[in-house]
Amino acid sequence: MVQVSDAILYLDPTSRLNLQSQIRQKLVDAISTGVFPAGSRLPSSRKLAIQLRVARNTVVLAYRQLVDEGILVSRERSGFYVADDSTKTCLTVPRAESEPHKDHLDWQKFIQRETASSQRFKHPSNWQAYPYPFLDGQFEASLYPIQTWREATRLSLGVRDVNQWSTHNDEVDDCMLIDEIRTKILPRRGIQARAEEILITVGAQQALYLLIQILADESSTFAIEDPCNPDLRAMLSANNAPIINQPVDAGGLVVDSNLESVRCVCVTPSHQVPTAVTMSQNRRLELLDMAHKHDFLIIEDDFESESNYLGSNHPALRSMDSENRVVYVSSLSKVLAPGVSLGFMVAAPEIIAAARGLRQLMARNPPLNNQRAAAYFLSLGHYDTYMLRLSQVFRERWNALRDALNYFLQQYSITSASQGGTTCWVRAPDGVPVNTLVTEAAKRGILLEPVSHFFASPKEADNSFRMGVTSIAADKIREGVEQLAQLIRSMASGAEENLDSASGELLSESSLRQHLTGNRLLSKTVYGDPFSIELRADGSLIGMAGYRNEDCDNGRWWVEQGKWYRCWNKWAYAETAGFFIVLDGNRVKMFNDDKQKIFSAVLTNDPWPQG
Amino acid sequence: MVQVSDAILYLDPTSRLNLQSQIRQKLVDAISTGVFPAGSRLPSSRKLAIQLRVARNTVVLAYRQLVDEGILVSRERSGFYVADDSTKTCLTVPRAESEPHKDHLDWQKFIQRETASSQRFKHPSNWQAYPYPFLDGQFEASLYPIQTWREATRLSLGVRDVNQWSTHNDEVDDCMLIDEIRTKILPRRGIQARAEEILITVGAQQALYLLIQILADESSTFAIEDPCNPDLRAMLSANNAPIINQPVDAGGLVVDSNLESVRCVCVTPSHQVPTAVTMSQNRRLELLDMAHKHDFLIIEDDFESESNYLGSNHPALRSMDSENRVVYVSSLSKVLAPGVSLGFMVAAPEIIAAARGLRQLMARNPPLNNQRAAAYFLSLGHYDTYMLRLSQVFRERWNALRDALNYFLQQYSITSASQGGTTCWVRAPDGVPVNTLVTEAAKRGILLEPVSHFFASPKEADNSFRMGVTSIAADKIREGVEQLAQLIRSMASGAEENLDSASGELLSESSLRQHLTGNRLLSKTVYGDPFSIELRADGSLIGMAGYRNEDCDNGRWWVEQGKWYRCWNKWAYAETAGFFIVLDGNRVKMFNDDKQKIFSAVLTNDPWPQG
Repeated sequence: MVQVSDAILYLDPTSRLNLQSQIRQKLVDAISTGVFPAGSRLPSSRKLAIQLRVARNTVVLAYRQLVDEGILVSRERSGFYVADDSTKTCLTVPRAESEPHKDHLDWQKFIQRETASSQRFKHPSNWQAYPYPFLDGQFEASLYPIQTWREATRLSLGVRDVNQWSTHNDEVDDCMLIDEIRTKILPRRGIQARAEEILITVGAQQALYLLIQILADESSTFAIEDPCNPDLRAMLSANNAPIINQPVDAGGLVVDSNLESVRCVCVTPSHQVPTAVTMSQNRRLELLDMAHKHDFLIIEDDFESESNYLGSNHPALRSMDSENRVVYVSSLSKVLAPGVSLGFMVAAPEIIAAARGLRQLMARNPPLNNQRAAAYFLSLGHYDTYMLRLSQVFRERWNALRDALNYFLQQYSITSASQGGTTCWVRAPDGVPVNTLVTEAAKRGILLEPVSHFFASPKEADNSFRMGVTSIAADKIREGVEQLAQLIRSMASGAEENLDSASGELLSESSLRQHLTGNRLLSKTVYGDPFSIELRADGSLIGMAGYRNEDCDNGRWWVEQGKWYRCWNKWAYAETAGFFIVLDGNRVKMFNDDKQKIFSAVLTNDPWPQG
Repeated sequence: MVQVSDAILYLDPTSRLNLQSQIRQKLVDAISTGVFPAGSRLPSSRKLAIQLRVARNTVVLAYRQLVDEGILVSRERSGFYVADDSTKTCLTVPRAESEPHKDHLDWQKFIQRETASSQRFKHPSNWQAYPYPFLDGQFEASLYPIQTWREATRLSLGVRDVNQWSTHNDEVDDCMLIDEIRTKILPRRGIQARAEEILITVGAQQALYLLIQILADESSTFAIEDPCNPDLRAMLSANNAPIINQPVDAGGLVVDSNLESVRCVCVTPSHQVPTAVTMSQNRRLELLDMAHKHDFLIIEDDFESESNYLGSNHPALRSMDSENRVVYVSSLSKVLAPGVSLGFMVAAPEIIAAARGLRQLMARNPPLNNQRAAAYFLSLGHYDTYMLRLSQVFRERWNALRDALNYFLQQYSITSASQGGTTCWVRAPDGVPVNTLVTEAAKRGILLEPVSHFFASPKEADNSFRMGVTSIAADKIREGVEQLAQLIRSMASGAEENLDSASGELLSESSLRQHLTGNRLLSKTVYGDPFSIELRADGSLIGMAGYRNEDCDNGRWWVEQGKWYRCWNKWAYAETAGFFIVLDGNRVKMFNDDKQKIFSAVLTNDPWPQG
């Protein structure tokens, strides 16, 4: 607790208030801002008078006035105390009228540069209170490696370690961390680097900021992915660099003649931000070839390099670069990042030197205590173990999200083709505007992320949103998606046909058996893979999904009380469900008890190609 | 240890090297950069062949070639190992000629912005190995509050704390730290602030950088102190802001009509950087008044606010500002700073919002684990205790430095008039160029800091240097200054008179007694205070120093073997010393056994005003 005698009460000799009023006003301010909390004892009037160099009576009169106002209470033989309800009182006590009002300064005159942070999507700060937060880059607390990080921190506070990092040059990074990155992290990405080719940064964000500052000006055209990290666009705009917004397709950044005139290309090959698409090997080679032919640099932001669940990891672009054109940017796990914030860049020594010089001006080196703790975290092998665990957790969640989307939203949405990562990209039905959906979903405890802020032109977002899994436990995903599906259906109800309005013939029990037995339903999963369901006469189901029938299941089907029922061994949560079926030409439409259409497929008796 | 199988060896299908040569080259690179250290075992040829998708024989041939080259050794039935002297060998193995050479890119084309960090003075990175490092802002390890910081860190890693800071929004600071600053640190500076008026930064440096970025452009004239922190000048120049270099005198920044047209004034009132002068109260009022009249802002960098040993602390400018014109910048102790790097600014909410937006773009918020640890450090009272200890330690050292300078360099140098801080400002004699002195001193283990880089025009530095005490223990200071004095004398010897060349009369024993007895020597201390030495007939000495005789001492004097001897009770380390004396008119010059002049004074019999 600060003693009043420690706090400087400055009495202004030029004030239009007399000394007593000034003392009163200062005490009120101090109490209302919590410097002197309720119940605390004020110094004796004698002591304060000495400190302020005023007559003791002046202080006594100020104290008495505050007692009259209910802000202080006087206790016999013990002194003056802040009243328990003083804060409430204080807030209603008007400032003395004669005190000069704070002028309203013309801030527009003074502030030359506002960062358009409003462009960024802001999720609620209390997102953890929501039952279904599908946010990317926010991490629920259970993921934090608390025990192992504690151990690393404890080691970093050894006497010898502290002596090293507390007396370190403020330009240089911790050589232990540089060495761990150089010999443990980079080889996994195929990168070999010397110490002078590495700079530690306050997260990958600072690495990007430094690079844009040193490389971009009005004469340097930058190509960036569209969509991309909006901060990158903001950084380039602040430097007046001409921007080429280059599209992204299923192979990642499109490499074409647009890139011939650029000075630098910014790319996220491992998992494109925000679509999570992985850049194909051919595209990588084309990009490097073009960089060589047209003499440009490449900034490679290696986002989520280690989470390709469906395919294998590609080596980093920098590992394939024999000319030092690629600047590699990465960070220690994003889960550590919110607290510890360590990233790094690997580049030609010329770039590292320029970035180091600017870093020195901006904020010196990233905190060395954290650098040393991270170095121990790596050297003890905790980082490897931790990344493995994260990868397993995220794989499970990502698969759960895809399964749930496929089950509950097959009718309505298409996720982007990605090989992994921590997000799915979902297109909302035309009748359901994403912004309304995000708002309505939040009211039901479901947090979604709109994606228009990632695009140079927001309408390119095509009514899509993202769902992330870093922030939500696996066992909450199905429930969240189910509730989201209900919301979407209710919002789309006007636009979609229901059981009453559907064109075609509602099949009775007998016609259900007649039309379905021995035939096949063909459709696509929510993420675009074809699948087939064979309804055998013996009541068994054979399901095959994927272009090479990667995913198979068996189950049973039957007809009961006018509905078609099915139960898979694995698919559809292995649960029994029954549907009303309308046959419209060769198209089968399935409706739930609420008469909502939840699935449609083509009915055929063509044989299905065996994988 | 990274297993080879974990490290990605990328084989380039377009390479002009065959597969075997590529494998060999990649392994050589990996060994030479330490990814595969000497003695480590390589994976079996079968395993590597599978990983690389090449024929096993291709790997075997590459291994055999490396064995032939002495880089690998083959052990019967056990496999291939990196040779113990492989690194030496590797470094001499030329890269295969057919491998494309790394082009020398034209970095001037790519790098648009170089930070002129060469302007900053760079001390040797191994400064701790020097016996007498008089550097400011470098801290010897014993000062670090290792036990208490450990305790604060341990608390910050409690489960509940980690849950808070690891899942925190990346825009917002730790509310616990904000509260500690608001209620513990700011009241000592007379400042009352609400949470939305405070932003945490990566050291005070980032606060200044953010402010310059948001406030300075080519249309905003900034007034800065001359001399000042050169980084401030570099930041303003990078933003093309017009700069007014305003002189600093014994009252701090000169406030005059030059400031009438500025948008913002940057000032270091507590201890001017780099002169350590404290701004007078009148100057403060003048500056605030002018800011009001001419509508400009003030950035107050509250450097070393708590180390005025000779006078009392002034409240911060911001505490006297009723208009929100003052932006207050400070940091947690500079001793914590090299490792932990936490600073903060207090300003109008409009400024804080703009700075927060830019901080978000630059690097997100400062590491929250450190914010929480610092909050505990404050809340446990450790910060108070620690600042008190630092103040005592620095006061002792600073006094030791002043005493030593006064004793050993009285003849040669003038320190600036400051009331405290951690540095002394010394002017070298004309015949001794500072740059040569700094170089020669370093060769003798003495590190000094030249000051020309602080000035807009380096020649204003007037052949001066700074000596700091944060980096050197008190008991090394005298020795360091004594050796420095010897160096300066030897360098100045050509320009200075010595005993043989001195004008005037060398006094014999009898004339020594005759001229000195009952008279008085008048001179000035090295830091400008007058002092008087009365040589009484009974052999006693009476010394008085300072304008109000603040500092007094007694001692004894006598004449022996042609020299005048004296020994003070406290002054001059209470040691006996003898001097040859030359009388030149009414001026007494004293020479040591090496015939060097080390002191001069005026001889008088006028009475000395009693204080």
